[in-house]
Amino acid sequence: MKRIKVIVAVSTDRWNRPLAEQYEQLKNPDTELTIVNLKKGPESIEAFYDEAFAEPFVVREIEQAADEGFDGIIIYCFGNPGLYAAREAVSIPVVGIGEAAINLACILGHHFSVVTEVAHAVPRVWRTIRLMGVTEKVASVRSADIPVLDMGDLDRLRAAVLHACETAIEADGADVLVLGCGSMFGVREEIEGRYGVPVVEPGPAALKLLESLLSLKLSHSKRAFRPPPVKQILF
Amino acid sequence: MKRIKVIVAVSTDRWNRPLAEQYEQLKNPDTELTIVNLKKGPESIEAFYDEAFAEPFVVREIEQAADEGFDGIIIYCFGNPGLYAAREAVSIPVVGIGEAAINLACILGHHFSVVTEVAHAVPRVWRTIRLMGVTEKVASVRSADIPVLDMGDLDRLRAAVLHACETAIEADGADVLVLGCGSMFGVREEIEGRYGVPVVEPGPAALKLLESLLSLKLSHSKRAFRPPPVKQILF
Amino acid sequence: MKRIKVIVAVSTDRWNRPLAEQYEQLKNPDTELTIVNLKKGPESIEAFYDEAFAEPFVVREIEQAADEGFDGIIIYCFGNPGLYAAREAVSIPVVGIGEAAINLACILGHHFSVVTEVAHAVPRVWRTIRLMGVTEKVASVRSADIPVLDMGDLDRLRAAVLHACETAIEADGADVLVLGCGSMFGVREEIEGRYGVPVVEPGPAALKLLESLLSLKLSHSKRAFRPPPVKQILF
Amino acid sequence: MKRIKVIVAVSTDRWNRPLAEQYEQLKNPDTELTIVNLKKGPESIEAFYDEAFAEPFVVREIEQAADEGFDGIIIYCFGNPGLYAAREAVSIPVVGIGEAAINLACILGHHFSVVTEVAHAVPRVWRTIRLMGVTEKVASVRSADIPVLDMGDLDRLRAAVLHACETAIEADGADVLVLGCGSMFGVREEIEGRYGVPVVEPGPAALKLLESLLSLKLSHSKRAFRPPPVKQILF
Amino acid sequence: MKRIKVIVAVSTDRWNRPLAEQYEQLKNPDTELTIVNLKKGPESIEAFYDEAFAEPFVVREIEQAADEGFDGIIIYCFGNPGLYAAREAVSIPVVGIGEAAINLACILGHHFSVVTEVAHAVPRVWRTIRLMGVTEKVASVRSADIPVLDMGDLDRLRAAVLHACETAIEADGADVLVLGCGSMFGVREEIEGRYGVPVVEPGPAALKLLESLLSLKLSHSKRAFRPPPVKQILF
Amino acid sequence: MKRIKVIVAVSTDRWNRPLAEQYEQLKNPDTELTIVNLKKGPESIEAFYDEAFAEPFVVREIEQAADEGFDGIIIYCFGNPGLYAAREAVSIPVVGIGEAAINLACILGHHFSVVTEVAHAVPRVWRTIRLMGVTEKVASVRSADIPVLDMGDLDRLRAAVLHACETAIEADGADVLVLGCGSMFGVREEIEGRYGVPVVEPGPAALKLLESLLSLKLSHSKRAFRPPPVKQILF
Repeated sequence: MKRIKVIVAVSTDRWNRPLAEQYEQLKNPDTELTIVNLKKGPESIEAFYDEAFAEPFVVREIEQAADEGFDGIIIYCFGNPGLYAAREAVSIPVVGIGEAAINLACILGHHFSVVTEVAHAVPRVWRTIRLMGVTEKVASVRSADIPVLDMGDLDRLRAAVLHACETAIEADGADVLVLGCGSMFGVREEIEGRYGVPVVEPGPAALKLLESLLSLKLSHSKRAFRPPPVKQILF
Repeated sequence: MKRIKVIVAVSTDRWNRPLAEQYEQLKNPDTELTIVNLKKGPESIEAFYDEAFAEPFVVREIEQAADEGFDGIIIYCFGNPGLYAAREAVSIPVVGIGEAAINLACILGHHFSVVTEVAHAVPRVWRTIRLMGVTEKVASVRSADIPVLDMGDLDRLRAAVLHACETAIEADGADVLVLGCGSMFGVREEIEGRYGVPVVEPGPAALKLLESLLSLKLSHSKRAFRPPPVKQILF
Repeated sequence: MKRIKVIVAVSTDRWNRPLAEQYEQLKNPDTELTIVNLKKGPESIEAFYDEAFAEPFVVREIEQAADEGFDGIIIYCFGNPGLYAAREAVSIPVVGIGEAAINLACILGHHFSVVTEVAHAVPRVWRTIRLMGVTEKVASVRSADIPVLDMGDLDRLRAAVLHACETAIEADGADVLVLGCGSMFGVREEIEGRYGVPVVEPGPAALKLLESLLSLKLSHSKRAFRPPPVKQILF
Repeated sequence: MKRIKVIVAVSTDRWNRPLAEQYEQLKNPDTELTIVNLKKGPESIEAFYDEAFAEPFVVREIEQAADEGFDGIIIYCFGNPGLYAAREAVSIPVVGIGEAAINLACILGHHFSVVTEVAHAVPRVWRTIRLMGVTEKVASVRSADIPVLDMGDLDRLRAAVLHACETAIEADGADVLVLGCGSMFGVREEIEGRYGVPVVEPGPAALKLLESLLSLKLSHSKRAFRPPPVKQILF
Repeated sequence: MKRIKVIVAVSTDRWNRPLAEQYEQLKNPDTELTIVNLKKGPESIEAFYDEAFAEPFVVREIEQAADEGFDGIIIYCFGNPGLYAAREAVSIPVVGIGEAAINLACILGHHFSVVTEVAHAVPRVWRTIRLMGVTEKVASVRSADIPVLDMGDLDRLRAAVLHACETAIEADGADVLVLGCGSMFGVREEIEGRYGVPVVEPGPAALKLLESLLSLKLSHSKRAFRPPPVKQILF
Repeated sequence: MKRIKVIVAVSTDRWNRPLAEQYEQLKNPDTELTIVNLKKGPESIEAFYDEAFAEPFVVREIEQAADEGFDGIIIYCFGNPGLYAAREAVSIPVVGIGEAAINLACILGHHFSVVTEVAHAVPRVWRTIRLMGVTEKVASVRSADIPVLDMGDLDRLRAAVLHACETAIEADGADVLVLGCGSMFGVREEIEGRYGVPVVEPGPAALKLLESLLSLKLSHSKRAFRPPPVKQILF
C-alpha cells in the first residue's frame, strides 16, 4: 500500500469532496489517499501574492506528512506553491499539479498551450514554464479573460474557455492543451473530439506521476534540493 | 485489463527474458504485457544507420498491435526508432523508452545528464533532446567511451560508466542522470547512494508513463501526428 | 568531373524528368548528374510514416552510390529521410534538400518562414528546424492548408500558397521564405517582386551546396556521424 | 526626498549596521533610508525552504511600507524572496538585490558568472536566472563549496571564493562576475585588479537601480503583476 | 562632480536643446553634462548604413572625452553605434541608450515589446536584442509603419505609435514597452494610464544607468572589451 | 561570366597575393575575381575598434562595386565588418567570410567550435554567432591565446592552434571546427586526418556561398536590409 497525502493548498475544504471522487476513481488499487487543506493561508490562489501566504503552510503540512510516514505528496494547486521548499525538506517525492501537467503535455505533441480562467494566472504559468526550462515547447499561454463578476455564469465561462482553447489551436499552433482552470465543463471532451488535441488535466496528471515515481522508487534529486541547514525560524 | 505490447526494436530475442522479468515485477496488476521483437531489422541498435533499418519493422509491428486490440505500445530502444511514424499510424499511445526517461528526468531536478556506453550514442541522444525541445535542461551527454573490444569486461565497463556519471555530476553540474546504457551493474544504486542524484532507467520509466496515459485516457496529439494519407508503399 | 547521384526518395519516376531539366540548367559544367528513384518505398512522402518506409531504401541507394564511385549525394525530399543514417554509412558528402534550403535561408535575412502545401508537413518541418538548432531564426511554419481534394485545382493551390506566404511576411514577420512545396507556380517570382523577400527553392539550394562542398573538399563530420558498427541486419 | 525601505529578509538585525554604513555612503543626497528586519521568519536564508518562511513576512512589511508612504523598497536577500508577490501588492517599485545584480551584470560584458559561498545557493541562482530569461548570458554558477564548519575561517573562505572566481573566468569564460556571497573580503578589488573583470555587488546594485526607477518615475508593470483579488487569508 | 559627455550620434545639433532640457531636469545634482554632436557622419540614423558612417566619429569623440577627463559617456542613438568599439578604446563606462532601455525593460515585467517609428528600425532592434542575449524576454518588435511622407503629420504619427503599442500589449502579450522612437507625444502617459504598462524612454534610462555605474565605480569588462592592439589606421 | 569583387577589409595589400592564388584555384570557371583593399582604415582587424574604422570604407567600396556592375561581393574579414550596412546599400549579394564559414559549419555536424589566434577575437565571434541566431549549435569559441610577441614563431603558433582545436573536440564536444585564424599551417589536414572532424576555412566557404547565390539568382532580403533613406552624410 502506498500512502499519498494530497494538499489542497487553500484554507477551505470546499474542493475536497469533488477531488476525492475524481481521485478515488483514478488511483491505483494499492494507493491510499488522504486529502487535507492548509491550516491557515488564503482561501483561494490566484496570484503570486496568494502563493506567498500559502507556501509556509504547504511546507509545514508536507513535513508533517513525512513524519507521519506518507510515501508521497501532491501539492494540489496549479502554481505549485512551496514545491521546491518542500523538496528540500523531505526525501519522499513531492509533485505539483501544474508542473506535472506541463511535463506530461511536453510528451504528447510538439507545441502546447496552457489555458487559464483569469488573466492573473498568465504570468504565474510563464513562471512555471521558465523554471521548467521548456519555453521552446510553448505555443501560447492564454486566459479566458472574462470579468470576475461573470465567473458565476458557467455557460459564459465555458464558452470563453472553449474560445481560448480554439484560438490556441488555430492561431497559436498548439497541438496539446493544458487546462489551468480545472477539468470541469466538459471542455476536454469537446476539444479532443473536435480537434484531436489531447487536453491534460493537472490533478489526474499529478496523481499518475506520483504513483509512477513511487513504483520506480524515484524521488527528486537531493543535489538539486539539498536539505536546508538547521536554523531558528520564527513562525 | 490493459494490454501493452513491448517492441524490443531488434531482430533477436536475446533481451526479452531479462526485460520480461523486470517488467513483470514493475507493472500494475491490471497490465498485461506482450514482448515481441522485430521480424527483421538489425540485431542491435547503436547508430542512426541501425535505426533506419529498424523503423519500418517497428511501425509494422505497431500497426499490427493496434489491429490486434492492444491498448498501448512501448518502443524498447533508447533511440525511439519509428516513434513519430507510429504515432501517425495509430491512435493508441506509443511511448519510446528514451523519450520517456528524458521526460521524467526533466522533473526530478534542474539539469540532467545522459550517460551512454558508446560514443556512437551521443549524437543520437542530442537528436532526441533537440526534438523534445529541452536543451535548456541538459548538463551534458557523456559516453563511457571504452573501446568496443573491452565491452565484454564488465568490471571495466562498469567502472567507466561510473566514472562518466561522476564527471557529469561534479564537472558538468548534473543533478539527475539518465542511463542510456541500460540499468545493469548496480550503477544506479551506487550513484544514488553516494550523491543523492536520482538515476532514471529508461525501460521502467516508459512502462509507468504508458500505464499513466492509459489510466488518464490520454494519447499523443492527432494534430501533431496526423494520419498518413493512404498511398502505395512497396515494402 | 564531379559525379552526383540525386535520389528522389519515392518509388516512382514521375518527378525525374522535370527535376532533370531544372538541374541540368543549374549545375556546374563539371558536374555530372544521375537521377534515381527508390527501388521500393512510398510513392510520395507526406508524413513521418512515409519517411520511415523510405529511409532504408534511401540508405541502400547511397551505399551503392558510394561503391559506384559517386562524389556526392542529394536526398531529394524536403524531409531529408535517411540523411543522418546515410552520413554514417558513407564518407562522401550527403545533402538533404530541406536542410540545405533552411541553412541557406538562415543567411539571407533575420527571420524565415517555411510554407508548405499540406498541414501534414508542418510538424516535419519543425522537426528539421529543431534538429538543425535554428529555432531562433524562425518566424513561422505555415501550410497552405487546402483540402487534398482541391490539390488538383492549381489556381486554387497557387492562391493558397501565395496567401500563406503573404501572411508569413506581414503577420509573422518573415523576411525570407522557404518553399517546402516545390518551386512551381511562379510563386517565387511574385513574392520576390512584390515584397523584396527572397524565396529559397530546396532542390536548387541543395545542388549548389553539394557542389560547394565538393569544391571545398569538405564532407560531414565523421565524429558527428560515426561509421555504424558492423552487425547482422535482416532486410 | 525619496524614502526607501530596505527589508533585510531575516529575523535578526545582525546585518543592519554594516549595511547601513555601506548604503549611507552610496545613496543619493535626496534618498532617505530605513532599514528593517522581518518580524518573524528565518534568521538566515540559504535554501528555498528558508525563502518560503520569509516570504509572507517580507510581503507584509512591504504592504506596510506602502501604507506608510515609502517611495520604494529593496528586498535585501540574494534570492529575492517575495519579490513577485510584493509587486502585485503595491505600486511603488520593489527591487530585489539578486535580480538587480544579475540585471546589471548583463550589460557589463558578454557572459557572467555568479559565485556563491555555499552549494545550496546554486539552484536558487539558476531559478532567478531562468525567471529573468537570461540563461543565454550565463557562463556558470559556482559555489566556493567549502564545508559549513570551515565558514568561520575567513582566510580559507576568501581563498575558496577567489578560486571559484578565477575558475569562472578562466575555465568558464566569464567576463563579468556577480558575488552572491556579499561584498566582504576585498574579493572585488583583487579580481578587478588582476583580470579587468567587473564584480557586481548585489546590495549596491539594487540601491542604484531603485534610485534610478524613482528618478525615472517608473515602476514594475501592473499588467505583469496585477493586484491580487481580495480574499480571506488566515495568517 | 561627475562629468558625463553625451554624444548625440548625428552631425547636426538639432536635437541638443530639447535633450539638454530633459537631461538637466533628470540628472543627479553632482552630474555635469556636456552634449556634443559628431564632427561628421550622417544627419540622422535610421539604418545599419547610417550607423556605419557614424561609428568612427562616435569612437573618436569618446576617445577625446576620455582624454579630457570625462567620467562617463552616453551614446545617444537607439542603435548604440560604436558601443563595443568605444568600450575597447576607453576604460570609463560607455552606455548606449538602446541597450540601457532594453536592459531596464527586462526587469520591469515578463515580456517587453519595442515600438519604433519606421520599419527600418525593426531589424536593428532585433540585432541589439540578440547581441544582448535577451530574446527570451521579447513579446515583439513593432513599427508604427506609416509612410515617411506622413511623418510630419504629428497627430497621425502619434496615433500610429499608440496603435502599435496597443497591439504589442493586446495581441503580442507585452507587459512592458520600450519606445524606440523617442519620448514625445505623451504616448508614455497614455499607455501607462490606460494599461498599467510601464513605458521605458531610452535617453532617461541611459542617464540613470550611467550615473549608477559611476556611483558604483563599475565599468564594462575589459576582458569582454580588450584594448585594441596599436596599429596604423588611416582615417 | 560572374564578376565578384573581394574586399580585403584592411588598408594594406599584403594579403592579396596569397588570397588571389587560393581563390584562383578554387573559383568556378565563369567567375572573374577582382581583389581590392580599403582606401583607408586599419592595416589589420583584431578588435571591434578596428572594425568601426573599416566599416565606412568597406561600404563605400561595395557601393562602388555595385555601380561598376559587379555581380557579388565578398567582405574578406572574419568579423564581417560592414556586412549589414552594405546589404542595405546594394541589391547584389554580399557575403562575409565569417558568416559564411559559420553557416557552413552548422550543416556539417551537431556542435561546432571556432578557434581563433588571439583572445581579442573571442567576443567578436560570439557577436557573430548571436547575430546569426545559432548559439544552440556552438560547442565553444577558443583562442590559441599565445602572447602577441610570440606570433612570429610559427611553430609555436601552430602548436597552440592545434592544441586549442584538440581541446575544442575532446573537452567541449565539437564535431566541426571553424578556423577564425586563416587556413595556414596545415592545421586543417592534421585535424581532419586525426579526428575525422571537418575544418571550415572562411575564405573558401565564402567564395562558394557567393557563387551559389549567383547561380541561384538569390540575394539577401531587401525586407531585412531595406535601402537606407537618402540623407546628408559628411565623410
